[in-house]
Amino acid sequence: MADKITPKEEDYSEWYNDIVKQAGMAEHSAVKGCMVIKPHGYAIWEKMQAELDRMFKETGHVNAYFPLFVPKSLFEAEEKNAEGFAKECAVVTHYRLKADEAHKGKLMVDPDAKLEEELVVRPTSEAIIWNTYKNWIQSYRDLPLLINQWANVVRWEMRTRLFLRTAEFLWQEGHTAHASAQEALEETRKMLDVYADFAERFLAIPVIKGVKTAHERFAGAEETYCIEAMMQDGKALQAGTSHFLGQNFAKAFNVTFANKEGKQEHVWATSWGVSTRLIGALIMAHSDNKGLVLPPKVAPIQVVIVPVYRDLGQLETITIRVKEIVGALKARGIAVKYDDRDNQRPGWKFAEYELQGVPIRLAIGLRDLENGTAELARRDEQTKENVPIEGIDIRIERLLGEMQEAIYQKALSFRESHIYHAHNWNEFEDMIANRPGFVYAHWDGTTATELEIKEKTKATIRCIPLDGADEPGTCVLTGKPSTRKVLFAKAY
Amino acid sequence: MADKITPKEEDYSEWYNDIVKQAGMAEHSAVKGCMVIKPHGYAIWEKMQAELDRMFKETGHVNAYFPLFVPKSLFEAEEKNAEGFAKECAVVTHYRLKADEAHKGKLMVDPDAKLEEELVVRPTSEAIIWNTYKNWIQSYRDLPLLINQWANVVRWEMRTRLFLRTAEFLWQEGHTAHASAQEALEETRKMLDVYADFAERFLAIPVIKGVKTAHERFAGAEETYCIEAMMQDGKALQAGTSHFLGQNFAKAFNVTFANKEGKQEHVWATSWGVSTRLIGALIMAHSDNKGLVLPPKVAPIQVVIVPVYRDLGQLETITIRVKEIVGALKARGIAVKYDDRDNQRPGWKFAEYELQGVPIRLAIGLRDLENGTAELARRDEQTKENVPIEGIDIRIERLLGEMQEAIYQKALSFRESHIYHAHNWNEFEDMIANRPGFVYAHWDGTTATELEIKEKTKATIRCIPLDGADEPGTCVLTGKPSTRKVLFAKAY
Repeated sequence: MADKITPKEEDYSEWYNDIVKQAGMAEHSAVKGCMVIKPHGYAIWEKMQAELDRMFKETGHVNAYFPLFVPKSLFEAEEKNAEGFAKECAVVTHYRLKADEAHKGKLMVDPDAKLEEELVVRPTSEAIIWNTYKNWIQSYRDLPLLINQWANVVRWEMRTRLFLRTAEFLWQEGHTAHASAQEALEETRKMLDVYADFAERFLAIPVIKGVKTAHERFAGAEETYCIEAMMQDGKALQAGTSHFLGQNFAKAFNVTFANKEGKQEHVWATSWGVSTRLIGALIMAHSDNKGLVLPPKVAPIQVVIVPVYRDLGQLETITIRVKEIVGALKARGIAVKYDDRDNQRPGWKFAEYELQGVPIRLAIGLRDLENGTAELARRDEQTKENVPIEGIDIRIERLLGEMQEAIYQKALSFRESHIYHAHNWNEFEDMIANRPGFVYAHWDGTTATELEIKEKTKATIRCIPLDGADEPGTCVLTGKPSTRKVLFAKAY
Repeated sequence: MADKITPKEEDYSEWYNDIVKQAGMAEHSAVKGCMVIKPHGYAIWEKMQAELDRMFKETGHVNAYFPLFVPKSLFEAEEKNAEGFAKECAVVTHYRLKADEAHKGKLMVDPDAKLEEELVVRPTSEAIIWNTYKNWIQSYRDLPLLINQWANVVRWEMRTRLFLRTAEFLWQEGHTAHASAQEALEETRKMLDVYADFAERFLAIPVIKGVKTAHERFAGAEETYCIEAMMQDGKALQAGTSHFLGQNFAKAFNVTFANKEGKQEHVWATSWGVSTRLIGALIMAHSDNKGLVLPPKVAPIQVVIVPVYRDLGQLETITIRVKEIVGALKARGIAVKYDDRDNQRPGWKFAEYELQGVPIRLAIGLRDLENGTAELARRDEQTKENVPIEGIDIRIERLLGEMQEAIYQKALSFRESHIYHAHNWNEFEDMIANRPGFVYAHWDGTTATELEIKEKTKATIRCIPLDGADEPGTCVLTGKPSTRKVLFAKAY
């Protein structure tokens, strides 16, 4: 049985840790900063992967796999990218261990097995991929190249939080090559839309699409687009990024193509990624003090059926009827589990599945069978009702759809009621300090102002929203002119 | 257009390299020993993954993810395992790069960022996983633990071959924990059966199930089971292994459980894995001098349709009819591609899909439409026939099933006609030297003899086959008594 979960109103951060731990999502490992993704957490990641992979393929992308290691000389080729990631690189320097003569049974790094050139464990794969693309691209006929990779990456982090910030994480990284800037920009925006669609429709998390400021841009990008989500503590979480890389990597790795006129040009690039961080976002967007709340589409188990019985004879009778229900649900593509373990009581199971976020729980006893009903409990709203077993598969299919929408709407109205507009510095400071949420405010467009605001309030510019209209005004900090408001928030 | 493929009769090794390269399967990367898995190769891996993952889940396993790095002190805890892998470990010693003051624009390893304890890039994950299981297992109620991981691993290799032997490769590794030796042994054998079933039914590669000799055992295992396949040059390829680990890792990491009587016991373990090496096996088992031959179940594209036309008006007419065919094939779950690119001629496309191993090619021109027929080319047997378009989806569905079986039977009869029995040393030496294939022979059971035979002939004991009956005899080398024959071959 799980321990008590710290209420989120009491300590949001502990609430998050408790859920990650008690719902069996992940834990810290013996390797500093690296996590173990436990089966329940990984099953959610698999659901995300399957849907994203489908969406990538539908938009013309294929998967491939590039090496884990990047030789230092390649890594440093694109200077801004290298500079941006150098401080958090795990570096392989040797390729062999040997017996440590001084300590029986111990091993030591073999000094004779030092690499001539150090290998960086990929923090991102632009360098190794563009060095490869060089040989794949000769002419405009080879373009566009639309490739995605599912992989692990390593960014050495001193302060880590499960899913949100870990030294190793899992992600996908798309890397595309194009014949023109316009086509690359279109790809960048298209993949941003794919991410937004995925977040909203699949994870039930509303997001704001925008572009990052120069300061917050991906190292090596010309422009970084992002989707920003609001967590239940009002903080922002960057849930996906899509970068227009211009010709930076093509120039660094000398990747050119012959255009239709036979002239050599540098190739245009994009890259885009989402990671296991999304699992953290999912938890923080929807869960409550009883545990995880999962939108049905991302739930590994959508319906759990728990038999309520006194003896094995009763169980047998119930099981016969339940198997029909299971069959009917599976036929509709619904992921259902029948938990007939007899070493745990129903009450224990109810709490366990509540904790794990299973959207719908059915409890069925002999009395229910006699009445032709089952008790249906809905995880998101914590409601229970007796429903007829006849046609229960149709009811559940419809209900799962309704719950998906309800969870999204709940997150959306939470966000809408936590978005503010600051008209001057006092208002801005007060909002950031005292009102959890996002604040729209005018900004003069300079990095100096951006940094000063961060220094004073801990709020950062999450993005310059794409759907905002131009609206002249003056910067909340400096009073200098501004053409439109940008989105500020404290962020994960 | 692809270059010529070296005929396999001329140079088998070059034939393999040519196919890997020209069919767009993989290539060497800038990182010594590491490969880039190109889209076509990766698509085949995805098909394998999907099927294996389904089989693992059907047998009660769940997926999880453990760290890429293993702290040296954990790595060395199970001594035999550590000793077995120490010589091929990539080691992370630092966690930061910094600007190299002496060389503008270059980076260097920051000597101030040396790790207190070195991290081994996992060559296999028993150590990190058993160190984690320690906290997951308290009582017999926590057992069995049936977990699989899809991951990359690194084993530093000096002599590499694409797919067959590379420094980094992709694999799955199952790690299970049990309350008794018998249950763990049953799991070991069950997963061996899953692998054999997968190889034969899905990859159409017949395999021999057996147990490894002590010398060939996985480092840290009590017993290693394997499946061995024959390639078209008569050499053996180990296509999967399943290890009974006894209590070795439980003892090294002190993993105990309270049994039903409340007494503490060490846990019993298994591990099992297959890797991207299987792609190499697939190529070498079935392909021919025209390129890849793929069994339909593992083919990313099962049917390609190529229009044959003079002008765009003709193409339009053909396309209308083809779309109906595509719809009918998709409705039967068949992966079909319509290649209506107009920048390549039909002949070029025919050769390209032949090279890529697409099982069935349909060519459709205006004349065909008038006759209500299409030209159907079968990749494996290089045959062509005109078939009615009416009912073509049913015909193709049946044909794909027949081809799957035919490819398996072809590989099986090749293997059966290349298995020999040696009764004495002269016969043995002659067979190994002059007849490509497997040789059954008696062996006295000692590692000394095994090594001497390897030294003299380059043949190794692939396995002690499980389905062989006891049959007393004398060792081909030493003349000492032997209870049954074992399987010798040169191997990849």
